Amino acid sequence: MREVVVLGVAMTKFDRYKDLDAEELAQRAILEALKDSGINKKEIEAAYCGSVFQGPMIGQRSLKGLGMVGIPVYNLENACSSGGTAIREAYLTVKEGRHDVALAFGVEKLSSFGKGGLPLDQQDFEILQGYSMPAGYAMRAQRYLYETEATPEHLAMISVKNHMNGLLNPYAQRHKKVTIEDVLQSRPVADPLTVLQCCMSGDGAAAVIFCEKKKAQQYVNKLIHVTGSVLLSGKFSNGFKDMTYPEITVRAGQELYESTGLDPSDVNVLELHDAFTIAELLYYEALGFCPRGEGFRLIEEGAVEINGRIAVNPSGGLLAKGHPVGATGVAQVVEIVWQLRGEAGNRQVPGARVGMTHCTGGGVWGMDNGACAMHAFTL
Amino acid sequence: MREVVVLGVAMTKFDRYKDLDAEELAQRAILEALKDSGINKKEIEAAYCGSVFQGPMIGQRSLKGLGMVGIPVYNLENACSSGGTAIREAYLTVKEGRHDVALAFGVEKLSSFGKGGLPLDQQDFEILQGYSMPAGYAMRAQRYLYETEATPEHLAMISVKNHMNGLLNPYAQRHKKVTIEDVLQSRPVADPLTVLQCCMSGDGAAAVIFCEKKKAQQYVNKLIHVTGSVLLSGKFSNGFKDMTYPEITVRAGQELYESTGLDPSDVNVLELHDAFTIAELLYYEALGFCPRGEGFRLIEEGAVEINGRIAVNPSGGLLAKGHPVGATGVAQVVEIVWQLRGEAGNRQVPGARVGMTHCTGGGVWGMDNGACAMHAFTL
Repeated sequence: MREVVVLGVAMTKFDRYKDLDAEELAQRAILEALKDSGINKKEIEAAYCGSVFQGPMIGQRSLKGLGMVGIPVYNLENACSSGGTAIREAYLTVKEGRHDVALAFGVEKLSSFGKGGLPLDQQDFEILQGYSMPAGYAMRAQRYLYETEATPEHLAMISVKNHMNGLLNPYAQRHKKVTIEDVLQSRPVADPLTVLQCCMSGDGAAAVIFCEKKKAQQYVNKLIHVTGSVLLSGKFSNGFKDMTYPEITVRAGQELYESTGLDPSDVNVLELHDAFTIAELLYYEALGFCPRGEGFRLIEEGAVEINGRIAVNPSGGLLAKGHPVGATGVAQVVEIVWQLRGEAGNRQVPGARVGMTHCTGGGVWGMDNGACAMHAFTL
Repeated sequence: MREVVVLGVAMTKFDRYKDLDAEELAQRAILEALKDSGINKKEIEAAYCGSVFQGPMIGQRSLKGLGMVGIPVYNLENACSSGGTAIREAYLTVKEGRHDVALAFGVEKLSSFGKGGLPLDQQDFEILQGYSMPAGYAMRAQRYLYETEATPEHLAMISVKNHMNGLLNPYAQRHKKVTIEDVLQSRPVADPLTVLQCCMSGDGAAAVIFCEKKKAQQYVNKLIHVTGSVLLSGKFSNGFKDMTYPEITVRAGQELYESTGLDPSDVNVLELHDAFTIAELLYYEALGFCPRGEGFRLIEEGAVEINGRIAVNPSGGLLAKGHPVGATGVAQVVEIVWQLRGEAGNRQVPGARVGMTHCTGGGVWGMDNGACAMHAFTL
């Protein structure tokens, strides 16, 4: 079976960019990833672009400006998992032998939509009920606080950790040290979630180049192996019945562990989809890093810090690094590759050899039922 | 190498649907395709949805209503080639062994955007110059009339033929017999194109189920083989320099012929992307059915009629069947499968054994440079 490695990665700083459009952001990331890979742009055989709100042909519009023309280009949308979906397809197209070199990139410019963030569908049944994303996650948080021994302080600690990590990441949108008190006293959004517990709106792009391993060996880079890929949609069986059980993430994690032979204890570094503080807590449990109802202990004990048992969101995660939707899942892979190469600077996870990425979203009658993409990487 | 067959196909009538939303249209097509295939919905291992304007997660939103949950779902956008891109990915995922059974579907509800048709990006550089699609194709038509011996009557004859075919197709949006005079005297849109020379706006969905051949043999259907798939983006090298040469279609056709061993003379039936009458003429030439500058002779001689040398758009094409963008490329495959099975009723192409589909679009600084998808099928 063909082996696939990551040859090059790059991302723009996540930020609010007044003077750059989505295409230019994508181009910056792609150019840097090419440079990082050492490969000529003419060797890219196909491109997979993850994006949600950038309109038709965002992939071609971006690549055109780099003279990367003529090849098959796929524009993929899977809500918050759009970037992860682009990663999956670029990886599998090399794994399955269709191409030897493929590019995944993701891009979003949310600042065009104003401060409000996402352009929500005002005819959507859930939106009409006021069931926007912060509301949905707040309900889950309330329920979690009711079911477990966790307190609002535990939620805040997630934000504190990710902002601390973001401070060490030059690519993070928000560079700000925050305390538990800061988080709890920041502007309320949907009780118990305050604004520092919700990811922010911003712009950015990220790119990853995959290559068949034999071909890749001619390049000088430290090769990072892709060892697993999962994409699932939810079963919608759970809904409001059990709000603290993210069914799709549980299933994606199980499938990734089974297909790779990995165990939660093998994972050194994990970028997961912390769109809200409660989300990160729930995913600790869903991905098997602790028993159900005990996720809050991991943050309390520091087990998920950069120097902990498993470093979660060393990049700052969505909460501090930012969440330009289509770029997010690709940027997660960029961070893991940097970590496994030992290139993560001040936020380097010591001795990281196994990394995972996780993105999930697309609330279709119940949270996170749309799509969940996970990937595994080893040095 | 694994062989792939089409096991089931279906489409809704293309129309303007007041009381059905995009999800419901998609569900109708998918249910009918499942019925046509004889396969249980639980055997569908992955789904690829082509759509441009339906917002995030249209694939999952559609499948959810049918209880088709949990599987990987991909939402693919490639402008007018979105449906063709979904077809390609569903086909290749079976061909390359990732899955044994995969569903492609396409859906669009354009009537929500009012009579104007497509929601164009008002900040787009070309749109700002007035270079909308009819304008661009009108320029190509003017140039074609200048360069060749063709007359406006030849353009009109394309519309007459496709409307004649559409009359025989219960799934066509417009059932109307039109004469050359009707076409030429219909409302001017962009000289020389009149309204009966431009495809109309509408709603619809289509679905195709692909299956690995050995597995498929347990079903009673007449199996249609998929023998080739091409997806390309344009090279943007041509632009306005040579307006009557659709570079991307020329290259896609060449690649399809080379990869399948087919020759233009082998093709019995072809569904091509006649968004405007001039487009169909140009593609006759681009796909090698006649020398350059002589496409108009094919329509003059009746060579492209249902009983001609090669039947082009027996379904009525975009001009009469309609063009709900994401559905179009999938519906082309539905028509070809019906034709090869001998199930096309009054519009049956006698003895059709080899069929092809072609969709192209996404004007990114020059017409049709975005994406072109082509597929080949044999009995």
